[in-house]
Amino acid sequence: MYELWYWPSIPGRGEFVRLALEAGGIPYRDMAREAGEEGYKALSADMALPRETPPFAPPYLIADGVVIGQTSNILLFLGQKHGLAPSDESGRLWVNQLQLTIADIVAEAHDTHHPVSMSAYYEDQKIEAERRSRDFRNHRIPKYLGWFEHILAQRWSWLAGERWTYADLSLFQLIEGLSFAFPRRMARIARDVPKVMALRSAVWALAELKDYLSSERRAPFSDGIFRHYPELDGD
Amino acid sequence: MYELWYWPSIPGRGEFVRLALEAGGIPYRDMAREAGEEGYKALSADMALPRETPPFAPPYLIADGVVIGQTSNILLFLGQKHGLAPSDESGRLWVNQLQLTIADIVAEAHDTHHPVSMSAYYEDQKIEAERRSRDFRNHRIPKYLGWFEHILAQRWSWLAGERWTYADLSLFQLIEGLSFAFPRRMARIARDVPKVMALRSAVWALAELKDYLSSERRAPFSDGIFRHYPELDGD
Repeated sequence: MYELWYWPSIPGRGEFVRLALEAGGIPYRDMAREAGEEGYKALSADMALPRETPPFAPPYLIADGVVIGQTSNILLFLGQKHGLAPSDESGRLWVNQLQLTIADIVAEAHDTHHPVSMSAYYEDQKIEAERRSRDFRNHRIPKYLGWFEHILAQRWSWLAGERWTYADLSLFQLIEGLSFAFPRRMARIARDVPKVMALRSAVWALAELKDYLSSERRAPFSDGIFRHYPELDGD
Repeated sequence: MYELWYWPSIPGRGEFVRLALEAGGIPYRDMAREAGEEGYKALSADMALPRETPPFAPPYLIADGVVIGQTSNILLFLGQKHGLAPSDESGRLWVNQLQLTIADIVAEAHDTHHPVSMSAYYEDQKIEAERRSRDFRNHRIPKYLGWFEHILAQRWSWLAGERWTYADLSLFQLIEGLSFAFPRRMARIARDVPKVMALRSAVWALAELKDYLSSERRAPFSDGIFRHYPELDGD
């Protein structure tokens, strides 16, 4: 059975992997969460193990003894192995391209509250965070979501054709995260990207995810990548 | 023949693709550069074409009619098709993981001079840039390069075994860029990461790249992702 390792208390990047595993009906163990209060310690200890292909950071997946790091890389593996992406090469590359673009905006979303120092607290970079968030809200969110809208406008319901792929699940998670962090901005932008919002609803309605999304395994957003600071939001 | 599209005047992310194409002896056309002074216009016009798999941003590669965006995705394609990565699945995933980690630090290197707004000039965010650069120099460069050093310490000369892959070329390009942008910091850190520095020298010495690296096609760093502002550097 696959082992997923990620920070136990936040959805973060681990959630992109979790959604694919859950929607694909793929058995896995959520290792740090299983360790309960010892989750962080267990993750740190596992990260410190000598390995041939060590991960730079969580999440990572251990699959039949192979350690696979980097969210988009784990999804590439799962997509191919478990039919969560097209089976032809150009379709696989397209879904990987979509996922990498989602990863780019996820990194930018993180930097809205940590624009100048990853090692300092948000409270120590609030002024810079307000400036970066303004840029993110006004320029970056519309640019990225506009791109996804444009793609959906010329296709069927999903980003890569008639069936959902892991990139659709990730776009859903991105919209969920942005809506949590920037509710005012997202309420305004929703009308400009109706197809993106429809995709989000379609993932909510997926039979494959119904149990998971209403379960306790689905962690709420809090102080991870997507954070809600009212002072960073705005129309 | 493949068509590579990227901003004509900077090495940027396009250079990671160029190095793989050149070292692999793969014929390609460098489209925007071929257009000379009209390069930017040609790129903008090409980006505006209706496409089934539109790129979000350059670089992108057009291969037998398929448009492939995202640097790491282009390299994944080239690596598999032209033997610039291991042919087994776990080796391919490992090289992709390495490349994605390089992409992460490249994005962070960009943000040292654009920490709060991608759309504003550096001059309008100098104070924030100094703070972000200090964090990048003191925490992020050592963390990333230490990880690569750790990997090289337990392997042969290259990141994925006995033969170079596109990830080795990319690590070389990363070190070149960091050394251009942060020469003082990199001079100090070099002694801590001798194997990374040896890999850089080994790529310089590759017979496959010798012609290219000394040619005019190899663009110097300037005002792209890696920029040298003395005020952002430091021991």
